[in-house]
Amino acid sequence: MSDQKAKLVGVGIGPGDPELITVKGVKAIQSADVIVYHETDSHNSNALKIASRWISPSAILQPLTYPVTIQSDSNSDDYKEKLNDFYKKSEQLIETFLKNGKIVVVLAEGDPLFYSSFMYIYDRLGKSYKTEIIAGISSVFGAASVLQVPLCYRNQSFTVLSGVLEKQQLIERLKNGDAFAILKVGRNVEKIRQALAETGLIERALYIERATMENQKIIPLKEVDSEQAPYFSLILIPGQSHQKKG
Amino acid sequence: MSDQKAKLVGVGIGPGDPELITVKGVKAIQSADVIVYHETDSHNSNALKIASRWISPSAILQPLTYPVTIQSDSNSDDYKEKLNDFYKKSEQLIETFLKNGKIVVVLAEGDPLFYSSFMYIYDRLGKSYKTEIIAGISSVFGAASVLQVPLCYRNQSFTVLSGVLEKQQLIERLKNGDAFAILKVGRNVEKIRQALAETGLIERALYIERATMENQKIIPLKEVDSEQAPYFSLILIPGQSHQKKG
Repeated sequence: MSDQKAKLVGVGIGPGDPELITVKGVKAIQSADVIVYHETDSHNSNALKIASRWISPSAILQPLTYPVTIQSDSNSDDYKEKLNDFYKKSEQLIETFLKNGKIVVVLAEGDPLFYSSFMYIYDRLGKSYKTEIIAGISSVFGAASVLQVPLCYRNQSFTVLSGVLEKQQLIERLKNGDAFAILKVGRNVEKIRQALAETGLIERALYIERATMENQKIIPLKEVDSEQAPYFSLILIPGQSHQKKG
Repeated sequence: MSDQKAKLVGVGIGPGDPELITVKGVKAIQSADVIVYHETDSHNSNALKIASRWISPSAILQPLTYPVTIQSDSNSDDYKEKLNDFYKKSEQLIETFLKNGKIVVVLAEGDPLFYSSFMYIYDRLGKSYKTEIIAGISSVFGAASVLQVPLCYRNQSFTVLSGVLEKQQLIERLKNGDAFAILKVGRNVEKIRQALAETGLIERALYIERATMENQKIIPLKEVDSEQAPYFSLILIPGQSHQKKG
């Protein structure tokens, strides 16, 4: 047992296809003493499913179970308190492993520093323990690769927006840029469609659910049912090519 | 010889560390008949260096040599004509391989659909030939991982800007957002520093050269010499955490 060996490792496991993990990420997962992953209270961890083929049989599996659902009202005090307790408990749990000299790998869907749950763990423990972070493929790039659309050319700007933003905020930001990705679409799809229509971008917008996963679905944005759209759906508005062909 | 086998594959080889290629990308490189890569006229290909360990000895290596340098005046007619000729010749070269039933892998630094040279090849050939695109880690995420900074939280927006933009354009866009990455810094560093100072973002800005490569360099932005900064340097302005700790 050596504290020298103890390490916190955030590994980006990519958008869904298990082969879209990096070689470095696979090596880190294979050599982990403890695999930490997030799940909802329905005990369903997408991250664990994606990474499972790379996990050593001897690794300890440590779930962190969210006390709230993704579609909860995130502005309520109850939500904030539950989430804060959850972060605190997660910190204590992981810290116990680190104090016992373990290599703790936290699985992060997409990239560990891009809208990821790993960031809250990092913010609490990253300064106190040896830490390594291994980048992953964000769903934005996974989506572009299966849709086969160039995202941005030369000096175009690229903006990633949360679909949770209010319609006026979305419109403001969509007016200032060239290419966009909108995440967290789900129940926000009707509001987003209106914002895209008002900014003249709707004809260029492409919708995809669960990009690179087995149950991936590509449907025209106008046909998306706002009651059915999953939270993990996104919209891309690629930059326009001005290349002269010939 | 079979046209059925012919395939154009764009593989994102990541920001520099050869282990930051995905498992899927490695498999594609290993099974390529032809490896296409870009180089400057000094015959220096960073992409080839990154991917070299994964390339089969039997693969044909096909460089595409840029007729212009990165820091040329991209608005001149001469530049545009040279570049257009280059794209046309590249297209013909790759098409000959495809017509001969080859699997042609084009190496793309970072991600193949994010400010990549592969996009110009895809735009010309992707609709005519069977095409696969494999996402890669952009230098933006490579940089965040080595700097160990969370890029954006919850509903923050994230904007990627080209350092080539004029100062006023940079300022406009920096006023509209939460977290940013600025690419193509190089000789533009003084202008970018001014735009960051004027928008109050300079204290949050982090500078890095050749993230995840062997010769990676992290220096404070205020100390960067504008005559020395390489084109492949970038600046991150991470989103601010509002997390309550305790």
